[in-house]
Amino acid sequence: MTAILSAPSDSSELPLDRERYPLLSGIGSPADLRTVPADRLPEVCSEIRDFLINSLSTNPGHFASSMGAVELTVALHYVFDTPYDRIVWDVGHQAYGHKLLTGRASRFHTNRKLGGLCGFPTPEESEYDTFTAGHASNAISAALGMSVAATLKHDEPRRHVVAVIGDASISGGLAFEGLNNAANAKNNLLIILNDNDMSIDRNVGSLNSYLAHLTASKGYNTFRYKLYTFLKKIGLFNDKNRGRVLRFNNSLKSFFTKEQNIFEGLNIRYFGPFDGHDLPRIIRVLNDIKDMNGPRILHLRTVKGKGFKPAEEDPARWHAPGKFNPDNGERLHSELPGTPAKYQDVFGETLVELARQNKSIVAITAAMLSGTSVNKMQEVMPDRTFDVGISEGHAVTFAGGLAKDGMRPYVAIYSSFLQRAYDHIIHDVALQELPVVFAIDRAGIVGEDGATHHGLLDLSYLSGIPGMTIASPRDEQYLRHLLYTSQLEDRKGPMAIRYPRGAGSNPDWRCPMKALPIGRGEKLKSGTDVTVLSIGPIAAEVSKAISIAEAQGVSVAHYDMIFLKPIDDKIMQEVAASGTPVITVEDASVKGGLGAAADEWLSSRNISRSVTRIGVPDKFVTHGTVSQLYKLCGMDAEAISAAIVGAKNAKNIEK
Amino acid sequence: MTAILSAPSDSSELPLDRERYPLLSGIGSPADLRTVPADRLPEVCSEIRDFLINSLSTNPGHFASSMGAVELTVALHYVFDTPYDRIVWDVGHQAYGHKLLTGRASRFHTNRKLGGLCGFPTPEESEYDTFTAGHASNAISAALGMSVAATLKHDEPRRHVVAVIGDASISGGLAFEGLNNAANAKNNLLIILNDNDMSIDRNVGSLNSYLAHLTASKGYNTFRYKLYTFLKKIGLFNDKNRGRVLRFNNSLKSFFTKEQNIFEGLNIRYFGPFDGHDLPRIIRVLNDIKDMNGPRILHLRTVKGKGFKPAEEDPARWHAPGKFNPDNGERLHSELPGTPAKYQDVFGETLVELARQNKSIVAITAAMLSGTSVNKMQEVMPDRTFDVGISEGHAVTFAGGLAKDGMRPYVAIYSSFLQRAYDHIIHDVALQELPVVFAIDRAGIVGEDGATHHGLLDLSYLSGIPGMTIASPRDEQYLRHLLYTSQLEDRKGPMAIRYPRGAGSNPDWRCPMKALPIGRGEKLKSGTDVTVLSIGPIAAEVSKAISIAEAQGVSVAHYDMIFLKPIDDKIMQEVAASGTPVITVEDASVKGGLGAAADEWLSSRNISRSVTRIGVPDKFVTHGTVSQLYKLCGMDAEAISAAIVGAKNAKNIEK
Repeated sequence: MTAILSAPSDSSELPLDRERYPLLSGIGSPADLRTVPADRLPEVCSEIRDFLINSLSTNPGHFASSMGAVELTVALHYVFDTPYDRIVWDVGHQAYGHKLLTGRASRFHTNRKLGGLCGFPTPEESEYDTFTAGHASNAISAALGMSVAATLKHDEPRRHVVAVIGDASISGGLAFEGLNNAANAKNNLLIILNDNDMSIDRNVGSLNSYLAHLTASKGYNTFRYKLYTFLKKIGLFNDKNRGRVLRFNNSLKSFFTKEQNIFEGLNIRYFGPFDGHDLPRIIRVLNDIKDMNGPRILHLRTVKGKGFKPAEEDPARWHAPGKFNPDNGERLHSELPGTPAKYQDVFGETLVELARQNKSIVAITAAMLSGTSVNKMQEVMPDRTFDVGISEGHAVTFAGGLAKDGMRPYVAIYSSFLQRAYDHIIHDVALQELPVVFAIDRAGIVGEDGATHHGLLDLSYLSGIPGMTIASPRDEQYLRHLLYTSQLEDRKGPMAIRYPRGAGSNPDWRCPMKALPIGRGEKLKSGTDVTVLSIGPIAAEVSKAISIAEAQGVSVAHYDMIFLKPIDDKIMQEVAASGTPVITVEDASVKGGLGAAADEWLSSRNISRSVTRIGVPDKFVTHGTVSQLYKLCGMDAEAISAAIVGAKNAKNIEK
Repeated sequence: MTAILSAPSDSSELPLDRERYPLLSGIGSPADLRTVPADRLPEVCSEIRDFLINSLSTNPGHFASSMGAVELTVALHYVFDTPYDRIVWDVGHQAYGHKLLTGRASRFHTNRKLGGLCGFPTPEESEYDTFTAGHASNAISAALGMSVAATLKHDEPRRHVVAVIGDASISGGLAFEGLNNAANAKNNLLIILNDNDMSIDRNVGSLNSYLAHLTASKGYNTFRYKLYTFLKKIGLFNDKNRGRVLRFNNSLKSFFTKEQNIFEGLNIRYFGPFDGHDLPRIIRVLNDIKDMNGPRILHLRTVKGKGFKPAEEDPARWHAPGKFNPDNGERLHSELPGTPAKYQDVFGETLVELARQNKSIVAITAAMLSGTSVNKMQEVMPDRTFDVGISEGHAVTFAGGLAKDGMRPYVAIYSSFLQRAYDHIIHDVALQELPVVFAIDRAGIVGEDGATHHGLLDLSYLSGIPGMTIASPRDEQYLRHLLYTSQLEDRKGPMAIRYPRGAGSNPDWRCPMKALPIGRGEKLKSGTDVTVLSIGPIAAEVSKAISIAEAQGVSVAHYDMIFLKPIDDKIMQEVAASGTPVITVEDASVKGGLGAAADEWLSSRNISRSVTRIGVPDKFVTHGTVSQLYKLCGMDAEAISAAIVGAKNAKNIEK
């Protein structure tokens, strides 16, 4: 039994137009690519770019990163013997070109669709996708593991393992831990630093300034590389005298630059920076360094969005642009005037409102400035807004320090990325009962980004943390009320407010804010046959389900719990007294969320009651639209109404 | 309502002998210390060491770290205006001297005892303990938060904030994230790197080699520091011309050393290394650099165990030595021959046995080599043993890479530290269903180390992860069986095996190993009135409780579930059919563990049954002996037997 909830595969194929893509259409696998003459590879790059522009203009996805990595991708599959050699992509925003070259071009129109290709590399889909990608900074550690495995297990130390990591990802703590350990083990690891000076937004952190500085001192590094290849050519550099030459090289380096490179300080040989779009050169360099022993880093400077002018000029906006006109880059907006705002914008704008009144409020995010709409606060209060880069752990511990000395920090991080900071929430916030507020965006099913990005576990992992208040608004107005409540002076301890990706339902969300009593839900509707408890905006789905069920003669009570922890005793008592079967509905794993809390409340009071948990089953969930996935998980209005009717019938039988 | 479960305070005082401690006995707070003439401070240091040796020889605790940090501690409280200025200790093994100087010397005999002082700095205990310590690498991020808060909130930018971090801790990803962000915000942060070239065991990682290299290039750094103080003295260095002088200084540095310092690469000014036991000098340096703006790092070389010869010679053994003879360092072993082995040793030795037969097995730990007994494997198979330093996240992702290419990695990490790798378990292991085994040591109540170290949440946080197998042995023999089972070729996906700190119960544990069926528990005893389900070695406590209850005429069935996930359907059906009330017992938080699983199983099948959860309540738990804390949590034999009798009586009333 697999732990993954998939949909039936969409295996429809759209063969490539041979006239438009004379080379790409003939590349069914990297082995085919390796038969293309080197001087025609730039044409392959052009065809890939043309294909990506066309395909993504109608079927949206991550655009600018993949455009910037085209030459790098072609070079890697050309030089290395994939899939025997391993390429590990970090995050995977940049891996569309890789998908095209590894036999998935004719299926690329299904990208990010239910049953179609996954938007990230995933081993489930292809042997060329060597490791899960989606959460940043894992490539070095995973690749090091593969490299050590090659040495240990297969006695195949000549397997090449390549980690491809961006300059934003490399600033994550996990990447540093990987770098710090890379030189410790016998391995043959090549790290490609794909440096475009961007994460999704502009990049931050000192390491990033340092990388820019390396670029500035490019002249020497080029000289050093030339010297190295010269020594190798004339046979002065080989494995035997490697140590001696390295020492010489290091002295030489010190002599010329008067600098030691950070990576070499960590015992990782550094090459670069080179122009990441100069394909012949990248291929030459890769061939030169691929058979060296031990960990190496190759620093390539690339341009995010390369080859599509509008994207080059505003790479942040073109990270995931939605549909656009492939000819001129005009963005095709599907949002009509009067459309409800996104939850993230309600959060961002409300936070600014609150921060104007409450001087203690500060905002922290981890490379999700525009994704969480914390940029709204940054625009008006830059001193009180902190984008810490891809560093979720630091974001939370830093918030702990701020809260300890009197601030009211709001940490805005996507649900699935906040998993990185689980211990930090416990140790650095909850144990001291500090009033840090976690604004958990992208909670629940997120849709097209799929398994790595759904925010399904937050209710579960936060529930076990002592003293944590956990809430979720049913709509935009309640998000405002919860935010207002969370910053009140007399509210104690950490609080999590989770809300989904995307738009709400109410265009008219700018209501006056009010304090909500902590741990109190609200009765939305009375009914006598079945009781539904829900938390979060899935209340709307429940309302639809109730309409369907009531049309079939079932009388349904509906409570919005608002708070998962503490759970509303009064509501639970009312439910217990009613004697009706209970259905819990949540946009989260059914393990450890509202269903579990209801069970715990009832059973600890020795009250026997049927509780049906509706939510995401105990599986990793594939990608698709939110409504497709709701259906797949059995948590759409139809499934909920069926459960309501079923609960009434079961109860009748019981009688 | 606080989230912390405390015991009544043990406020007994043992005033210091004025003759033996003429200076220390007069220091009730750092303000008193600051009245001691500078030339007598070395005497204070001697008295602190003498006090620590004496106190810890009879009341065991962390010894060597605090001995090495005595001068540093005295210097910090002498130079800085604590508690207005903030000192943030990382981990806190080194903070006993700090406790003595901040009014806790006369209570130090209660250290680590129920109701007594906590073995780590904790804000609950003293305003001088500014932040939770216990989990490594958090000090820089927390201190940065405090420093930014001082700037923002109090308009008190002259508050000094000092983070004290060891060379092992600084290699953790969180510390790197802190460093990478330190230069981004307006702050006045001083980082003291207390470099003794040790974590609990010998230190690992490239950063550590780099620190040793810095020490080797000490001559120049000393010159540079002298030049800097000279420039400052003659007025050439001030805030106004800071930028210019820094640039000059950097050029000068490059000119002389031909090197750039890693920390300065991250825009953090670096000073050192200095001898961390040269008190007058440390005080001078601290005074020189304390009023500089922006982040600085001061690198001090110290000797772990300094001042007690046996500890200086073998600091790893003296990290937490237990009782010893203060005159000659002879260790007083409380273990008698024939005492049961520790669980960690059963794990370590069994792993070696298995690894000899199964060539795919590799072992990974994160700076817990001797603590997890992975050192046993390292001794005989160093190529297949990886101590990655304080890098729990990397340990898990690295294991993922190894498993992906055919190895069977065993990741041995303490339960509470594994929280750091929660996302890595999900994203880099479980999502790919990789056969990584998590050997979770120190699971459950750990005793004297207290709130930061209890392993109470693993059952809860692992339960929500799809496809995770979770088990716990009731004794040493079952630990062997589970380990054997976990490495079988046909066992799929990740598996967690949790076991407690300390010794088991069976001196005769070297049994032949057998495969256990996944998801099957065992019936230990039949009974007709009440059913107890337990998991893990707490089965022994349950057995005692059953004897007590049966003496009172209650017939009790007892099942050892062995597996929490998947839970044993057959046992649950048997329990359901029996109609008896159910009591679940686990050495873990009652949120999300066995009680929750039993509730879920029953309620999802619409079976009404009273379930009483016995385990650690939803609180952070204080320190004390394991049996004291079992009692405090209501999970000792007495409490369990009372629950059994109560369940029977309640059932009779129901009838």
